[in-house]
Amino acid sequence: MSSHFDTIVNLAKNRGFVFQSSEIYGGLRSAYDYGPLGAALLRNVKDEWWRSMVQMRDNVVGIDSAVIQSPRVWEASGHVGSFSDPLVECTNCNSRHRLDKLENPQQCPTCGMSGTFTEPKDFNLMFKTHMGPVASEDNAVYLRPETAQGIFINFENVRRTARLKLPFGIAQIGKSFRNEITPGQFVFRTREFEQMEMEFFCRPEESAKWLEYWLEERKSWYMDLGMSADNLRLRAHDEDELSHYSSHTYDVDYNFPWGWDELEGIANRTDFDLAAHAHHSGKDLTYFDPETNERFFPHVIEPAAGATRTTFAFLLDAYGEDEVKGEKRAVLKLDKRLAPIKVAVLPLSKKPDLVDTTEAVAGPLRRRWDIEVDVTQSIGKRYRRQDEIGTPYCVTVDFDSLDDKQVTVRDRDTMAQDRIPIEGLETYLSERLDA
Amino acid sequence: MSSHFDTIVNLAKNRGFVFQSSEIYGGLRSAYDYGPLGAALLRNVKDEWWRSMVQMRDNVVGIDSAVIQSPRVWEASGHVGSFSDPLVECTNCNSRHRLDKLENPQQCPTCGMSGTFTEPKDFNLMFKTHMGPVASEDNAVYLRPETAQGIFINFENVRRTARLKLPFGIAQIGKSFRNEITPGQFVFRTREFEQMEMEFFCRPEESAKWLEYWLEERKSWYMDLGMSADNLRLRAHDEDELSHYSSHTYDVDYNFPWGWDELEGIANRTDFDLAAHAHHSGKDLTYFDPETNERFFPHVIEPAAGATRTTFAFLLDAYGEDEVKGEKRAVLKLDKRLAPIKVAVLPLSKKPDLVDTTEAVAGPLRRRWDIEVDVTQSIGKRYRRQDEIGTPYCVTVDFDSLDDKQVTVRDRDTMAQDRIPIEGLETYLSERLDA
Repeated sequence: MSSHFDTIVNLAKNRGFVFQSSEIYGGLRSAYDYGPLGAALLRNVKDEWWRSMVQMRDNVVGIDSAVIQSPRVWEASGHVGSFSDPLVECTNCNSRHRLDKLENPQQCPTCGMSGTFTEPKDFNLMFKTHMGPVASEDNAVYLRPETAQGIFINFENVRRTARLKLPFGIAQIGKSFRNEITPGQFVFRTREFEQMEMEFFCRPEESAKWLEYWLEERKSWYMDLGMSADNLRLRAHDEDELSHYSSHTYDVDYNFPWGWDELEGIANRTDFDLAAHAHHSGKDLTYFDPETNERFFPHVIEPAAGATRTTFAFLLDAYGEDEVKGEKRAVLKLDKRLAPIKVAVLPLSKKPDLVDTTEAVAGPLRRRWDIEVDVTQSIGKRYRRQDEIGTPYCVTVDFDSLDDKQVTVRDRDTMAQDRIPIEGLETYLSERLDA
Repeated sequence: MSSHFDTIVNLAKNRGFVFQSSEIYGGLRSAYDYGPLGAALLRNVKDEWWRSMVQMRDNVVGIDSAVIQSPRVWEASGHVGSFSDPLVECTNCNSRHRLDKLENPQQCPTCGMSGTFTEPKDFNLMFKTHMGPVASEDNAVYLRPETAQGIFINFENVRRTARLKLPFGIAQIGKSFRNEITPGQFVFRTREFEQMEMEFFCRPEESAKWLEYWLEERKSWYMDLGMSADNLRLRAHDEDELSHYSSHTYDVDYNFPWGWDELEGIANRTDFDLAAHAHHSGKDLTYFDPETNERFFPHVIEPAAGATRTTFAFLLDAYGEDEVKGEKRAVLKLDKRLAPIKVAVLPLSKKPDLVDTTEAVAGPLRRRWDIEVDVTQSIGKRYRRQDEIGTPYCVTVDFDSLDDKQVTVRDRDTMAQDRIPIEGLETYLSERLDA
């Protein structure tokens, strides 16, 4: 992989964005924990998605459904039958492999033998567990492989209680789980991951129009949050790539260090899911249009983004290096809304006077934003650290601050410094951070 | 159960706070989905906890660790060995029961036979699944039964990257899973639930002091968010109630319709967890104090709250009924920070002029808060609906608004009405909602 990939993975580990999960026990393959900065960044990505997709729209509402649902949900959705990869087993060493990922479909990559594979067998990607005191097939349940079905099964309850009229959307953010045979590429493909999904219900004849609308909206969302247009593209799925539920799907791809890969899928799921759940449950999941007196299954456009991989893409895209007075500087030019720490407050020394003034400066800021007070090392090193974790503003409290009641505010991107009265600091920062 | 309990459960279902999960398939026992209002309320509860426990404190950071961790984590923590309930099986009908919950420990409640139970056997409460393409004991993994262990195993990585000095805390919000034999009481005890946990690391000799501190802080948090002091109590665990890891534990109890029951446990976990993980992993998880040159395991105070049951308690506590002009009014007097919808904008009719003005009024508010525009029914019925879902302010756009550019703002609690210029509305509401 490229050095850019390695740089970001190292930064993530060394600065506390992402740690290998269960690292003290040698790690669990392709599982990750988000440290203080990573948890904040991931949280900000999710908050911005929610704000853009739910809060700012009068025809979209949010829900939060369970990870473990009735197994009948996954029978109806097609996941029990179709959500699988073709696996072969080596009869020599008993290792299993994805047939479609083998470089040489004859030769086992584990033991090196040739011609030892069984016929391929479908391997279901859902994690199975058992609910209740007896582990039997009767009480087998699955961890959801997508949040979408939690929306479809609640369609009628949500429509009724929120009194929604077409077109409308139901959105959800949450964890999903897929027992991937070949996870990899850091947090890009993990067995446990977080999704941001919205099902947008519309009249069947308007689905092509809404697909276009959401393609534009979603691509714009990444760019509005600072992702480079050159690193984004929309790509239509070929006929043979389409999921079992979809008539048209586009991917929003990001130009990752290993090539273009998917951030988000935007699919026309037609009426596949509502019709399937109506059929399996015996419940009427049609929509009644009081204006036309028609009853029909709405069609569905689904923008489904990966929160964790999107967070990774924002990290990759924001990272840059430049020079300050002949010294190399690493800087994360994250959009201010995404930055884990909005303001760092840096007293020039640990002298008690300065520390007291620092706390007086930091207190009001802490009520509004995620801030950090840093009293370690030289001021230059502290600037470098804040640049590297993407903090938009550093506020320096120096000895003059004790007399003139002013502080120096440094801008991450321009490195310009403004001398600001302490009593105007909150307003100064608010105009720049909350605009 | 009491009528108050039924009232809230019905309100939750009818207004879209909480639905039975997989309801169209007959439901999954004791699993729930949060509808638009419930998802917003739960989110607000979690945001307030995070703000109070992480954002406002300079010695607490947050993380977000994986649900599925190395199984060795749960061996070290004692959960594989000790996290179990005693189960008996009826040899007549094969049903299983918790021995400690049986009304008559001789007689099977399923088939009615007496003397048919086996000896009790420990039943582990962790959900087990398998990671990777082969389901065998070698790749068995568990869904986490608490978020706490994700904090302990990351202790050293977080301390190092966030450069923390004792005392400090690491906080986390997330889903946990327990295969409870007897879940129940609506969302109070469910197999899938959400926790808000913080591990506060301190010098061993200061643990008693910090336990006192967190008892006060946490009880105050509920009261600050409007929960009635009469419905809250702190209760010390008896010796025989203590978990395997704890020397002292208190519960923050709420006076639920079925009696006092736990919202949150505040435990002195001593050095049990860090020492156990150090022992099992072979890693040094001691803390080095540069001032005293000592190396030791910090002790841990853990305030561990249930997000979902706390949300339920806020609903129960906020609900009231009063009379308006001889008519009964149901009202949720939720703290403004918790209310799912902050402002409802209500045009007096659907006439195009009013609808346009309504959108002009609503637009700027939507950028700041979760709002709802409601054009259905009579204005009186719309007020009743907003009262019942806890909306602090209703803004009515009437025909005079077209001329005088003013709207009427109604306060949920006092029902007082203020006539406010549209251009001053955002400031008026901000002073009341963001203070």
